[in-house]
Amino acid sequence: MYQVDLNSDIGESFGAYELGMDGEVVKYITSANIACGWHAGDPMVMEKTVQAAIRNKVAIGAHPGFPDLMGFGRRNMVVTQEEAKAYVKYQIGALWAFTKAAGVAIQHVKPHGALYNMAAKDEGLAKAIAEAVYEIDPNIILVGLANSKMTEVGEKLGLKVAHEVFADRAYNSDGTLVSRNTKGAVIHDSDLAVARVVRMIKKGKVEAINGEDVSIKAHSICVHGDNEHALEFVNKIRETLGKEEIQVISMDALLK
Amino acid sequence: MYQVDLNSDIGESFGAYELGMDGEVVKYITSANIACGWHAGDPMVMEKTVQAAIRNKVAIGAHPGFPDLMGFGRRNMVVTQEEAKAYVKYQIGALWAFTKAAGVAIQHVKPHGALYNMAAKDEGLAKAIAEAVYEIDPNIILVGLANSKMTEVGEKLGLKVAHEVFADRAYNSDGTLVSRNTKGAVIHDSDLAVARVVRMIKKGKVEAINGEDVSIKAHSICVHGDNEHALEFVNKIRETLGKEEIQVISMDALLK
Amino acid sequence: MYQVDLNSDIGESFGAYELGMDGEVVKYITSANIACGWHAGDPMVMEKTVQAAIRNKVAIGAHPGFPDLMGFGRRNMVVTQEEAKAYVKYQIGALWAFTKAAGVAIQHVKPHGALYNMAAKDEGLAKAIAEAVYEIDPNIILVGLANSKMTEVGEKLGLKVAHEVFADRAYNSDGTLVSRNTKGAVIHDSDLAVARVVRMIKKGKVEAINGEDVSIKAHSICVHGDNEHALEFVNKIRETLGKEEIQVISMDALLK
Amino acid sequence: MYQVDLNSDIGESFGAYELGMDGEVVKYITSANIACGWHAGDPMVMEKTVQAAIRNKVAIGAHPGFPDLMGFGRRNMVVTQEEAKAYVKYQIGALWAFTKAAGVAIQHVKPHGALYNMAAKDEGLAKAIAEAVYEIDPNIILVGLANSKMTEVGEKLGLKVAHEVFADRAYNSDGTLVSRNTKGAVIHDSDLAVARVVRMIKKGKVEAINGEDVSIKAHSICVHGDNEHALEFVNKIRETLGKEEIQVISMDALLK
Repeated sequence: MYQVDLNSDIGESFGAYELGMDGEVVKYITSANIACGWHAGDPMVMEKTVQAAIRNKVAIGAHPGFPDLMGFGRRNMVVTQEEAKAYVKYQIGALWAFTKAAGVAIQHVKPHGALYNMAAKDEGLAKAIAEAVYEIDPNIILVGLANSKMTEVGEKLGLKVAHEVFADRAYNSDGTLVSRNTKGAVIHDSDLAVARVVRMIKKGKVEAINGEDVSIKAHSICVHGDNEHALEFVNKIRETLGKEEIQVISMDALLK
Repeated sequence: MYQVDLNSDIGESFGAYELGMDGEVVKYITSANIACGWHAGDPMVMEKTVQAAIRNKVAIGAHPGFPDLMGFGRRNMVVTQEEAKAYVKYQIGALWAFTKAAGVAIQHVKPHGALYNMAAKDEGLAKAIAEAVYEIDPNIILVGLANSKMTEVGEKLGLKVAHEVFADRAYNSDGTLVSRNTKGAVIHDSDLAVARVVRMIKKGKVEAINGEDVSIKAHSICVHGDNEHALEFVNKIRETLGKEEIQVISMDALLK
Repeated sequence: MYQVDLNSDIGESFGAYELGMDGEVVKYITSANIACGWHAGDPMVMEKTVQAAIRNKVAIGAHPGFPDLMGFGRRNMVVTQEEAKAYVKYQIGALWAFTKAAGVAIQHVKPHGALYNMAAKDEGLAKAIAEAVYEIDPNIILVGLANSKMTEVGEKLGLKVAHEVFADRAYNSDGTLVSRNTKGAVIHDSDLAVARVVRMIKKGKVEAINGEDVSIKAHSICVHGDNEHALEFVNKIRETLGKEEIQVISMDALLK
Repeated sequence: MYQVDLNSDIGESFGAYELGMDGEVVKYITSANIACGWHAGDPMVMEKTVQAAIRNKVAIGAHPGFPDLMGFGRRNMVVTQEEAKAYVKYQIGALWAFTKAAGVAIQHVKPHGALYNMAAKDEGLAKAIAEAVYEIDPNIILVGLANSKMTEVGEKLGLKVAHEVFADRAYNSDGTLVSRNTKGAVIHDSDLAVARVVRMIKKGKVEAINGEDVSIKAHSICVHGDNEHALEFVNKIRETLGKEEIQVISMDALLK
């Protein structure tokens, strides 16, 4: 039987600032990436988000980012491997406090924004992140861009690794994502996007922007809950996965 | 046999900013209160400080403070109990990441600065802090000002509680500290300060500023490593405790 | 002829976080209080907000707050007078950069949230704020709660002072605001709220919560643009002021 | 007559954290680059540093950096030109508040750390910084690495530009600094360092690391006050400049 995990970034509000329709998207996903207070999130938000995930039987993951609240963790920063490792540890620990108090475990760690993108290509940075996870708990799953340095380094280290795919993004023939600055990088046709995801799951293939077929593992699909439109798309994916008899299941169950 | 713990705030450097003679004071103490990145400390400093504590066989504690790096956590802030609880959880978790990776446990939690002082008097705030500790792990020791709301509330909740005393501070007849704004609040004669500590440990008494004797528990003495002068004082205390056959031992061993 | 200024806090977004319907409320007001990056706002937001104010012919003011983004500057902090003075200077200067580059002047300074409320009662804090304004430019108007320490201290120092009133808040018989924790503190009947404002402007009187009449100056009314409901209320106030032949004019013109 | 300015970064303390021997180095320099609260400095420190500069008749400049206190502004960050421009404006304004209140003007702006280094090579970033200065006040001097994109762009925009040289750094044959990672990048022989500076000022030449002579303008020399050793070097430079009849004078006077 085919299986896939649906993950989404939630808990990105901060203080008086509310962001995302967490209360809605949490109903559709199986894994939640919870911001840890650096690029988004604060302790009150983390507490509430952990509770919401538990109520909705959604597995919990840490979503560490760069120390850049003003840039929402989306801006590249040049940090040393030692810094990256310590930053990721700190943020995993901060989230752990709320999961421990609530009697649940951290299922996974998925780096956020610029940290995620940089680690997909930078082996040293990927290693720093993977080691942070491993040293805290080798049973925590590391989530990275499918076919990236992040997943490669995590697997080499002995971590369970979830390969993440994007429904609405075009791929290069080497399996990397087409840069957002390139024409055709984003797939706006939601039927096509869903069909591509189904093929990735069932066939392990995706058609690259140049027309070639690329091998890809699709353990988890990244979905968004920013607005009504995003929620409709999540709903559509779930419906199609159901019709296609693809079970939506947390990555922990999937990777067992 | 008489016993006492010596604790000190360490790991208060931040980025390029170095503070305190951690490398020296860590040789004299049995319990380290490690800043968690809010009023002081950063992940790199936390990593190094945890390693230094382990090398010196010093037990490790979290030292959470208000989100006020500019004020070093020394300024009163009015936060709700929910906020205080979430803030303390967050900071304990952040430190836990480094202790977990290093294979050691968190022995204790001691609030910092304004949070410590406010919680000594404010039952609601004290409860928020104690609950944060209890929900994460009821085996973690809570450190508070001897005879304060903090220790009272912690004991009521079922936590192990360490009563902390100050060698160089005068006490009121109700067991509270004389405010620093009052004449005579700080004891500058180091011989007198040490003698008072010895009496607190052996007799459970301290002479208040009005001459009355006050009952006090002295599980742990707070010492400082800010400068050469502070280090000399720590050295003197250790020497005198040795001569007085008072064993210096971590609070975890002491409270067993 | 009767005159009054309408002011509103705008520019409170931060990074990826959007807050308030600035684009709408700016059409109704005569003075904008622009957040300066401490409790809200960032340089990009400040730049855009200054431009929006200029396009809408709205006078610009600095809206300094406590260094507490997580608490949106709404939490009391105990800072020294020297600190408060330096913090207010810093934030006025930061906003000045954008007004100077745009070729306009700063009309006024209105402290935000907890800083505003504390300064309404604390003479020392009020003095620190007023001196910060005075030392930068004695022609800048200081905005404070009508009948408060803030306005008293500002006038004593020789600043032009705008007394601010709240349409939807009940007053005590000494002219102070009824605490939000007290029943009846907020006036939910918008007709009554508007009628009270008209009476404040025309008669210089407001009925206190105990039924007594209190003298009050109403140079400026604080309005909000948080949501559709708030905007409707602003619209209603403007309509009524028009019918009552009360001119809505910036505080700078009003205080000349 | 030969002339040169001596500049140094001061006001880099933050809250409880003290950094640098500002009280000493301020006696030797003619221009002070004062941190503006982003990578270092806080409003209290800025106030004191402006006062110290005035007492010592040292001209004042803003020293804006990236929003990265934890990394002391030394880590590259990828920000847009709009962001860089707004960030520099904000920080210039923040410092202006203290100079305005003290009755003095801002003489210059020198970007800090990673912002300085990136702008030396990145024309777009350099343009953003130069425009921020120009829009606030075209009379403010822009300080950049001699022969860099920063100075080139500033001059093109019509700003007064001070070319800065480093006594203790090796140069490439294209006039850029040899990277710190390259052997021979730092000149440890203080006699040689001083001799090179004298030649830069008198001959407008410096010997590059490959032995070729490079043309260089030396309006201002960057000196440090981090420790006793640095202060000795500053003292040595001043002595030698005296003997060589090179007048040490603020960049404002020099560029007139």
